[in-house]
Amino acid sequence: MQNTQMIEELKKIVGEEYVLTKPEDLYAYSYDATPGHSYMPDAVVIPGTAKEVSEILKYANTHKIPVYTRGSGTNLSAGTAPLKGGIVLLMLRFNKIIDVDLENLIAEVEVGVVVQDINDHVGQFGLMYPPDPGTVKTASLGGTISENAGGLRGLKYGITKNYVQGLEVVLTNGEIIHTGGKNVKDVSGYDMTKLFTGAEGTLGVITKAYLKLIPKPEADKSMIATFKTLEDAGNAVAGIIAAKIIPATLELIDNKTIRVVEDFMHVGLPVDAAAILLCTVDGNPIVVEDEAKRLEKVLADNNGEVHLAKSAEHKEQLWTARRMALPCLAKLRPTTFVEDATVPRSKIPAFLALVEKAAADNNVTIGTFGHAGDGNMHPTIVCDIRDEEEMKRVYAAMDAMFRGAVELGGTLSGEHGIGLGKLPWMEFQHGKAGMEAMKAVKRALDPNLILNPGKLLGEC
Amino acid sequence: MQNTQMIEELKKIVGEEYVLTKPEDLYAYSYDATPGHSYMPDAVVIPGTAKEVSEILKYANTHKIPVYTRGSGTNLSAGTAPLKGGIVLLMLRFNKIIDVDLENLIAEVEVGVVVQDINDHVGQFGLMYPPDPGTVKTASLGGTISENAGGLRGLKYGITKNYVQGLEVVLTNGEIIHTGGKNVKDVSGYDMTKLFTGAEGTLGVITKAYLKLIPKPEADKSMIATFKTLEDAGNAVAGIIAAKIIPATLELIDNKTIRVVEDFMHVGLPVDAAAILLCTVDGNPIVVEDEAKRLEKVLADNNGEVHLAKSAEHKEQLWTARRMALPCLAKLRPTTFVEDATVPRSKIPAFLALVEKAAADNNVTIGTFGHAGDGNMHPTIVCDIRDEEEMKRVYAAMDAMFRGAVELGGTLSGEHGIGLGKLPWMEFQHGKAGMEAMKAVKRALDPNLILNPGKLLGEC
Repeated sequence: MQNTQMIEELKKIVGEEYVLTKPEDLYAYSYDATPGHSYMPDAVVIPGTAKEVSEILKYANTHKIPVYTRGSGTNLSAGTAPLKGGIVLLMLRFNKIIDVDLENLIAEVEVGVVVQDINDHVGQFGLMYPPDPGTVKTASLGGTISENAGGLRGLKYGITKNYVQGLEVVLTNGEIIHTGGKNVKDVSGYDMTKLFTGAEGTLGVITKAYLKLIPKPEADKSMIATFKTLEDAGNAVAGIIAAKIIPATLELIDNKTIRVVEDFMHVGLPVDAAAILLCTVDGNPIVVEDEAKRLEKVLADNNGEVHLAKSAEHKEQLWTARRMALPCLAKLRPTTFVEDATVPRSKIPAFLALVEKAAADNNVTIGTFGHAGDGNMHPTIVCDIRDEEEMKRVYAAMDAMFRGAVELGGTLSGEHGIGLGKLPWMEFQHGKAGMEAMKAVKRALDPNLILNPGKLLGEC
Repeated sequence: MQNTQMIEELKKIVGEEYVLTKPEDLYAYSYDATPGHSYMPDAVVIPGTAKEVSEILKYANTHKIPVYTRGSGTNLSAGTAPLKGGIVLLMLRFNKIIDVDLENLIAEVEVGVVVQDINDHVGQFGLMYPPDPGTVKTASLGGTISENAGGLRGLKYGITKNYVQGLEVVLTNGEIIHTGGKNVKDVSGYDMTKLFTGAEGTLGVITKAYLKLIPKPEADKSMIATFKTLEDAGNAVAGIIAAKIIPATLELIDNKTIRVVEDFMHVGLPVDAAAILLCTVDGNPIVVEDEAKRLEKVLADNNGEVHLAKSAEHKEQLWTARRMALPCLAKLRPTTFVEDATVPRSKIPAFLALVEKAAADNNVTIGTFGHAGDGNMHPTIVCDIRDEEEMKRVYAAMDAMFRGAVELGGTLSGEHGIGLGKLPWMEFQHGKAGMEAMKAVKRALDPNLILNPGKLLGEC
């Protein structure tokens, strides 16, 4: 009854066609890209304006109905899984790039726009929006803001947070607020923009953002280096930073992943190498030439066998190999957990050794690749979620990995978020007092705990 | 009585010599660099460890005694003025640069260290900590974090927030928490680091920070351009950005300020110019040459008369003129209000016109200089705070300036903070709902409202 009434109410707010309730629709929105988390919502609602979002939240807040804001659902920590039933708030009708302000280098964009579309649009003005998660061609802006997505260019260009300057947010009480804006410098009040960014939809519903743009680099140069030991690869990464070179991308692929990619792709990857580093420097053409030379030297000095990308095709081939790392690993077994435990970059060799040990100790398969420049690794566990005994071993390996990362001064998540997947280790990283401080913030902005309940912090 | 007991308790925690109670000591800490705000505290306490801070906060929280965290007291919005009596918590014994991690480019620094000392220290490794408020030689790190200080390099290098990666914070309940750390990417939980940064000491007491460092630019080149109209100067700023040049500094000085500086300094500034732009490009030597040439052309194309800094001395002379803007203006009258209303950079000409009108309408003297690249202007009002009638006019001019800035899409404060000075306009900028959201966060982390009460948000 309660449910029927809710659906009627929601239809009044957004119109009949924007409330989905058929079982097949509910099922389609019961999960995201994270294995092992599927929960049926009661309704999928597709609002078209902030005003409609406000009306929905007012209703949900009054009746204490859970609300899960969702974009493309590509996230990897179950952040949009409707854990406790209720309303999936699908934001894909917020699909407009409202303005590109060329004088202030700011784009005003609604949250349903796909990240790649932003770059395609601003690219015509010689500008770029640097955050580039692997899902850049499918992920919606809102999801990347709420997860504070990173990507391959994190070391040199930073992450989503560094480019979100202002937000339109609907609060749990239905109030629509505006945080930040077009100002490069703004210290008026608490930094609510940064608080909502990366909050995984637990504090408010973001409807629009002001994004900082930067001039597109004029030139770039890529190279690949193969290493016989992980130590050499680690030393090369340290050496690059010590030489004060900040590459646009600095990607590492471990032996396990190299073998899997080569097995499927036959692109001539060195299957005996302990690791590959894929590097790109970009910027002013003259600087790029200079940095590429210095980079090549550092790689060689650390026993790397260096191959420059000789042509656009060759460069594309190298990056295809990198991009295929995850799909190739995913083909091995029915279930894939892409993790993103992250460590200070100097700890990468220690972390990779720890991951190898966790895999061996628990007899699970883990291939690792990721962003060596910023210490953001992706140990990828392939398994079969239907096999309970195996899953116990998988969990034990994860436990070793996450605790190990935190003990190395790292963090549970570099870019995928906490969601449900990493909840078990949150208190280990943040301590009781740290968790309580975050929960206090959650309760302050969402006193009835209706926004994405149970995520990020667990029960509040 | 309560007071005597408090002093005894505080002495037990930090030792007798670190509790100041003599009237002359209390008076010395009753104000900061903001005119018109002086309030006597009951005690000045100088803790040496986070543990001692924790004990002090536990005591203060239990007895609901206000606590004002203070570094060098250079701030410009009364952020450290002990408005409601209680304890001034002087953090200058937190004076150690604990570590410079060259592999991860992170400095671990206590909050009492002066910002310039950080740069002097890391400079020997070819690194720099970019935030550079005007008070860089006296301001303590903690103050610059709590105010999220900006400075001259904001456009290219960003502000304090962009370089604070982790914090040690003592919460109002005495718990010591650690936020963030050395990881470039970290999305584990809410971004408490960014929440405490710029919170003006209202949410916790910061004791230590992890600061991101970057390679020092190898070369730089400075030039000055004089303009006959504000419009030309504004167009030149827009043209520089449109040409995709991001200068390290791009400073504007208006006619009023030019005249005052020239009067005192006699360095040959063009007293008939409507405005001067002072520009520096930095980075790779070859790029600097190229950008300097393009910059010169943009300035000339917008009717700027360009003079390159021909020597290190000449460059120094130009920047001395800029640095003397505030001291020279301050010599005009007994009282100086340095404001920092900030607008999107495309709105600078409109904002400067508005400031001129506010000055004329209210018959007050306002000289303006500031960071044109990021729209962060410093309209500086000189007056006599003892003259009540004049102060009414000053307040009316401020009112016009702040409302005008917000209406142009700007903000009340680009880098000085809200403190007490800009409280009257907070709701105008953020709306009732925005204010209430921030107050909810404040109450969540400081339920007894003991930390810097009455500041930033007013009564909570």
